[in-house]
Amino acid sequence: MKLLRHGTAGQEKPGALDADGQIRDLSLLVPEFTPDWMAPAKLQALAAIDLSRMPLVPEGTRLGAPLTGIRQFVAIGLNYRKHAEESGMEIPKEPVVFTKAVSCIAGPNDDVELPEGSQASDWEIELGFVMGTWARKVPVAQALSHVAGYCLANDISERDWQMKRNGQWSKGKSFDGFGPIGPWLVTSDELPDPQNIALKLAVNGQTKQQSNTADMIFPVAEIVSYLSHFMTLLPGDLVITGTPEGVGLGAKPAPVFLKRGDVMTLDGGPLGNQRQRVV
Amino acid sequence: MKLLRHGTAGQEKPGALDADGQIRDLSLLVPEFTPDWMAPAKLQALAAIDLSRMPLVPEGTRLGAPLTGIRQFVAIGLNYRKHAEESGMEIPKEPVVFTKAVSCIAGPNDDVELPEGSQASDWEIELGFVMGTWARKVPVAQALSHVAGYCLANDISERDWQMKRNGQWSKGKSFDGFGPIGPWLVTSDELPDPQNIALKLAVNGQTKQQSNTADMIFPVAEIVSYLSHFMTLLPGDLVITGTPEGVGLGAKPAPVFLKRGDVMTLDGGPLGNQRQRVV
Repeated sequence: MKLLRHGTAGQEKPGALDADGQIRDLSLLVPEFTPDWMAPAKLQALAAIDLSRMPLVPEGTRLGAPLTGIRQFVAIGLNYRKHAEESGMEIPKEPVVFTKAVSCIAGPNDDVELPEGSQASDWEIELGFVMGTWARKVPVAQALSHVAGYCLANDISERDWQMKRNGQWSKGKSFDGFGPIGPWLVTSDELPDPQNIALKLAVNGQTKQQSNTADMIFPVAEIVSYLSHFMTLLPGDLVITGTPEGVGLGAKPAPVFLKRGDVMTLDGGPLGNQRQRVV
Repeated sequence: MKLLRHGTAGQEKPGALDADGQIRDLSLLVPEFTPDWMAPAKLQALAAIDLSRMPLVPEGTRLGAPLTGIRQFVAIGLNYRKHAEESGMEIPKEPVVFTKAVSCIAGPNDDVELPEGSQASDWEIELGFVMGTWARKVPVAQALSHVAGYCLANDISERDWQMKRNGQWSKGKSFDGFGPIGPWLVTSDELPDPQNIALKLAVNGQTKQQSNTADMIFPVAEIVSYLSHFMTLLPGDLVITGTPEGVGLGAKPAPVFLKRGDVMTLDGGPLGNQRQRVV
């Protein structure tokens, strides 16, 4: 299934995409897509709903992030070889881990407000995944069974705050709106192999990033296993898996950053599309 | 008030410390101490309860962290001059910010399990505070009005994972049990000045850290304001404010780290005491 939330910000209702690509409302059956709805049994129950008999949501309705109540938002850095190189960083021997504030999570097409005085806000298209079950010290071979589904993410990053403002990366990664997620969560049963998804991001129609999750240094199964060895992953936890080359920071001859009026468009194939206007 | 949660792990009930230092159960009036209970109006309502008429909780009952459902666990690094020096780090010109997984939060006296293979687990006594209201771009002068209360914290840290395992600090800060919080949350009305709290930590009875929050480089009001300029702080968010000198990493002539059987005792004056056995 493709699970989503529709409606104005803060008042979203649960829904799903039907076979014809139309949005169906599920709020008569499901109060909200909270972490407990990511459990395998709950997802199986959702799959039993005949979407064609549920109410249609009007076209053009805003979408929010596909679930709410996320408790941990973890990110992997430098997980594509060429992106590590363009950032002037070493190829990691084990995953680089940082976090984003859960308060930065936004809908897939919400405007992105540049932080006051920002000179270096940048884009990062990424594959995200959501945990379905509690995971602690999980072997790689069983790791994917803990994943509820996959989604598209833009890990928007203020490079000056991330790297020059005295501290850890999360400082430049956590502004409100810096975590557009969605449009939907593709449940794992529909996407058994997360390592073959084409990712493409353009700014003002010009392609900046074009890659495939096949190029990830640490695939999803290894990330789940690795993370679960130093923290407990909880149902509903959101993990984004790193961005490929082509960010503004790595542009030649000089970095190029976001400015007011720019439009970012993201294409994640089965994960859907995002479009954000910079304001 | 001194708010707390009592009972076995995962099944705690809300309570409070009465004037005689006895624990009173509040579960007949309050379902749980979740972030919404940190709102100023809710705290005022709690203060209207005559604790002497509420049921006594048996002595020796386990305590959990004083609230549950925490969404963001933010930490400030190197916020005491001498600790920055002993760590071989520069004195920060602005706060160093990192995060801990919310899944690492534990009760104040719970055993601390060393991670498998850990060679460098360390203690860090800290003043913590909990947000009462949503905060975004808050001026320093108004910052403390957003704080619901204060608590004692031990920011347990695996130094090898924190600093040598390729990435950001949170990797060594997020193991299950690495965030003992409590025994209680002292509401702000009872502690108008958080910058005069004596902190003392001993290992096996030997004093390792002894300082006062008066020595913090960035006081609580500045931390709230600073954080709120790059992320939205949510009710119930937990922030710990950095540790003073005397951690194991800084010991001379050589670092000293935790081993099985060690006992950490923490004294936070009005914030109460903690005691953790290393297993």
